[in-house]
Amino acid sequence: MSMTAERSVFYISDGTAITAEVLGHAVMSQFPVMTNSFTLPFVENVQRAQAVKAQINAIYQQSGLRPLVFFSIVLPEVRDVILQSDGFCQDIVQALVAPLQQELGMAPAPVAHRTHGLTASNLGKYDARIAAIDYTLAHDDGISLRGLDEAQVILLGVSRCGKTPTSLYLAMQFGVRAANYPFIADDMDNLKLPPALKPLQHKLFGLTIDPERLAAIRQERAENTRYASMRQCRLEVGEVEALFRSHQIPYLNSTNYSVEEIATKILDIMGLNRRMY
Amino acid sequence: MSMTAERSVFYISDGTAITAEVLGHAVMSQFPVMTNSFTLPFVENVQRAQAVKAQINAIYQQSGLRPLVFFSIVLPEVRDVILQSDGFCQDIVQALVAPLQQELGMAPAPVAHRTHGLTASNLGKYDARIAAIDYTLAHDDGISLRGLDEAQVILLGVSRCGKTPTSLYLAMQFGVRAANYPFIADDMDNLKLPPALKPLQHKLFGLTIDPERLAAIRQERAENTRYASMRQCRLEVGEVEALFRSHQIPYLNSTNYSVEEIATKILDIMGLNRRMY
Repeated sequence: MSMTAERSVFYISDGTAITAEVLGHAVMSQFPVMTNSFTLPFVENVQRAQAVKAQINAIYQQSGLRPLVFFSIVLPEVRDVILQSDGFCQDIVQALVAPLQQELGMAPAPVAHRTHGLTASNLGKYDARIAAIDYTLAHDDGISLRGLDEAQVILLGVSRCGKTPTSLYLAMQFGVRAANYPFIADDMDNLKLPPALKPLQHKLFGLTIDPERLAAIRQERAENTRYASMRQCRLEVGEVEALFRSHQIPYLNSTNYSVEEIATKILDIMGLNRRMY
Repeated sequence: MSMTAERSVFYISDGTAITAEVLGHAVMSQFPVMTNSFTLPFVENVQRAQAVKAQINAIYQQSGLRPLVFFSIVLPEVRDVILQSDGFCQDIVQALVAPLQQELGMAPAPVAHRTHGLTASNLGKYDARIAAIDYTLAHDDGISLRGLDEAQVILLGVSRCGKTPTSLYLAMQFGVRAANYPFIADDMDNLKLPPALKPLQHKLFGLTIDPERLAAIRQERAENTRYASMRQCRLEVGEVEALFRSHQIPYLNSTNYSVEEIATKILDIMGLNRRMY
């Protein structure tokens, strides 16, 4: 038995377990307990479920503490194996289905719902998502200005302010065709909006970043260069922010936000349709 | 009032609303109802919450059906505004916190938990994630064989079988440095494992795909070419699968799986650590 009495937490699903993990983690963060977590995806059949049950029970035997189990499994015979374990089991979807049943006045008709699944009915949408990723890669970092009018959003900013990860996340998570265009040091003497972007003004979105954070990021890649100097970072950020303001380009400081947050804010501000995959 | 009596569903959060949307969608898919959904992220203050409440109430007035509201908001004064709306409100995190409170024998200590947030405490981990994205982009499609030994996994497969989206998803969602290497038509006469990959055999993972699906994908890009022909697709897939088998490289047929599923299976099969962001 461990001295710190860490509580074991399982995130189990017949799919990717991404939702069980994210939600379970949000729930656990509300309690001041030390945890040791296991994510077990693709628990799709009785055999695998029995192995998981044995793992849960073994931890209970060793620690004397019931493992906490957040799960989502559609097949009743697989789900039942998990429910028969010694864990404290919570079905993350059913917890919300029960109250809804009353409100809707109808019984649930459980379907094999694969949250992150690929089926004949969503194949076209999936292809559009992959096409968005292709487009975004082809228009990363100003690689190609051709077909820029097909972009749904064009991110502008200095090198290493987060344009590429944000573009890719927009494409990956939301199926948005996101191009990005970098302003480089040579542009800074007389920073102007490139002529190719002027007719696309309504698609432009700026990213900025605190010069201190920018310098730290650049130092990681190119230590002791002008590129990574505080002076240069301050200059570039100042120029680019002035450009955003003078052209009334909406912009966001990425310093304290993750790609998820930046991407979601961009959709919100630009009024872009949010597709779910 | 609309003839079809669609039920309005809101996914609301003080963060990205990604979790509320994914979980709420899974719950709703259990019921045979037509829905019309709204995702409202960053409902962080009372003022915005009041606007949301007005929107919910207006829909109730017009339709006579209570909108369903799946939400996750930490600040009590913001949450209360939503709870006072005419919607049928379900707090997706609290639904699981309550039963856990009893099991853990302690009260929750609500913290401003940003599921997809960036804070001082996870900044290092976040930087590692961005570094993984950089690495993956630099090692996409066999662009660079330098530094391939730093990859955590190297995906192999024919053109358009899903290597690039899967690599990017592995980097983006799990912070995994994922390289990928394409086998091209010219390789097929005498398909061999490239010498540079031999010492990295334990990191190799193959992707394959049904020739019919591959041909359909390639037709979209290069109609009526040899590259997109059924004959060529069948040849390439056959050769590559034979190579995977002869070298005992684990592989997966991507045809019926989304990038989320493929990426999660790869982590599972390769025993790679699954980090959460």
